[in-house]
Amino acid sequence: MAKKRICVLATGGTIASRPTANGLMPALTGADILAMVPTLGERCDIDCVQLLQLDSTNLQPEHWQVMARAVAARREQYDAFVITHGTDTMAYSAAALYYMLENMDKPVVLTGSQLPAGVPGTDAEQNLLTAFAAALGGHAGVYLAFGGRIIYGNAARKLCTRQLTAFGSINRPLAGTYAGGRLNWLANVPAPTGTFQLHDQLDTRVGVLKIVPGLSPRLLEYMVDAGYRAIILEGYGLGGIPDQESPANFLPAFTYAQEHGCRLVCTTQCTYDGVDMDSYEMGVRAQQLGVEPGGDLTTEALLPQLMLELAE
Amino acid sequence: MAKKRICVLATGGTIASRPTANGLMPALTGADILAMVPTLGERCDIDCVQLLQLDSTNLQPEHWQVMARAVAARREQYDAFVITHGTDTMAYSAAALYYMLENMDKPVVLTGSQLPAGVPGTDAEQNLLTAFAAALGGHAGVYLAFGGRIIYGNAARKLCTRQLTAFGSINRPLAGTYAGGRLNWLANVPAPTGTFQLHDQLDTRVGVLKIVPGLSPRLLEYMVDAGYRAIILEGYGLGGIPDQESPANFLPAFTYAQEHGCRLVCTTQCTYDGVDMDSYEMGVRAQQLGVEPGGDLTTEALLPQLMLELAE
Repeated sequence: MAKKRICVLATGGTIASRPTANGLMPALTGADILAMVPTLGERCDIDCVQLLQLDSTNLQPEHWQVMARAVAARREQYDAFVITHGTDTMAYSAAALYYMLENMDKPVVLTGSQLPAGVPGTDAEQNLLTAFAAALGGHAGVYLAFGGRIIYGNAARKLCTRQLTAFGSINRPLAGTYAGGRLNWLANVPAPTGTFQLHDQLDTRVGVLKIVPGLSPRLLEYMVDAGYRAIILEGYGLGGIPDQESPANFLPAFTYAQEHGCRLVCTTQCTYDGVDMDSYEMGVRAQQLGVEPGGDLTTEALLPQLMLELAE
Repeated sequence: MAKKRICVLATGGTIASRPTANGLMPALTGADILAMVPTLGERCDIDCVQLLQLDSTNLQPEHWQVMARAVAARREQYDAFVITHGTDTMAYSAAALYYMLENMDKPVVLTGSQLPAGVPGTDAEQNLLTAFAAALGGHAGVYLAFGGRIIYGNAARKLCTRQLTAFGSINRPLAGTYAGGRLNWLANVPAPTGTFQLHDQLDTRVGVLKIVPGLSPRLLEYMVDAGYRAIILEGYGLGGIPDQESPANFLPAFTYAQEHGCRLVCTTQCTYDGVDMDSYEMGVRAQQLGVEPGGDLTTEALLPQLMLELAE
């Protein structure tokens, strides 16, 4: 049987970083990193494309387009894709690719590391092994592989800034695990039901507003005035946002947003369990004024999803 | 030995809620709730004060003042305080009281429930038992007791919108646990070293800005123009904020904030492990432009802390 063909798209990140006088900076190429784990090439043929060389803090929606187009352009040539990526915005990129690559019929697996490749105790090797295992033995679709976990692309969140099991799966079961050299698919992942489609147009006029005690509704109105076409509200708990006269009542700002064609979507600042805006009086009222519940989706998932919907 | 005297300060919340046609609304008084757990009165004398009757989504910094002053005014009359509170902003209130009640020499324990008192399967009784155990057998200081966990007041976060173990301890060990009717202090909590002092002046001109891909630095500049005197930046990972020319560079906005006397404090949008702005090049640069690292503190803790500092 012919070896599978894997395309590695390298974008920088900690995994590719080296110490400098000013702190860590991306310096290694994808080829440098792959050369540190020679066993990867035993089971597959690997081509490496250096797409970007960025600390992922600087990764922006335009780079999601670069990645999505790179996958789409090579989709028929390869059996699977591994994207090496900084951890800081990897969950956002994974969600973006999850929605931009509709009905993706090959595995696309993002990975990276908390510590640079090549430094003592780095997690780079384990995470690459996990990502390759998912790419070679896994299911079609977009995943994030990290710390032994294989997470659906639209459910990942970076939960830890230092711990090596940095990413969690939010409100979806893990797709799989990798431990002791063994890939274990936990989920019965359904195959794509339609034709592959690349959605690469984004309207980036989407903002995020976290609700905190003392927050003035005027900030929301400013964001509407500034031209945001959708705003993700990170409310409290199941989706609570202040609605009393004194000192903070967001209801008039909701009306203002609706009158100005700005969508409001409410998610929660809590990590787990999502929103339910039918449970409490204020959630019911907010929905009456046009606020859409974000359900179980995270900010990381809602942000690219809204950018795509607005560009349609 | 005389029974200990406990003061319960009731503020509303889910624990005090009843279903209405528009969803849950606070309706029960503190006395109603306490009457549902008659064993609480066996070990102590309880006085109940109805301070507020709010869904805690509507709790604002002015209510932190109400609570802090209520505790301070009764500090010498009681052995401990239990505050019943909605879950949505309980972590913010716990942090506010933690800083406002400096060197508090009695236990102050906040609690509430995910399900209303009196409904089948409610966690109200267990959480009240936990809070009373911490109040009666515990250490001086401000704590949040929930789901069997006793959490330092400045380290709590609501992590789950539905699960009963809703609150986690962020970047501090648990102070204690309560299980099987037994209180177990895990931490060797130091006694207050100074004289009690009430800090009840707050400058609420503190904002929060979560960094996401596509966010324009202009929003930060607007917040400076709008009169915010401090802004908590929820950066990526260890404290990353975009610093490249295209399309998002926050460095000029940092300078703008500093020139206009607006403090910038960077925390992380990740749940665990805090920030370290010395690790990456961009963190080093941001600090050179006056951005202060928030260390291990959460947004919930930094928000009242900054409001207090600005009012000094």
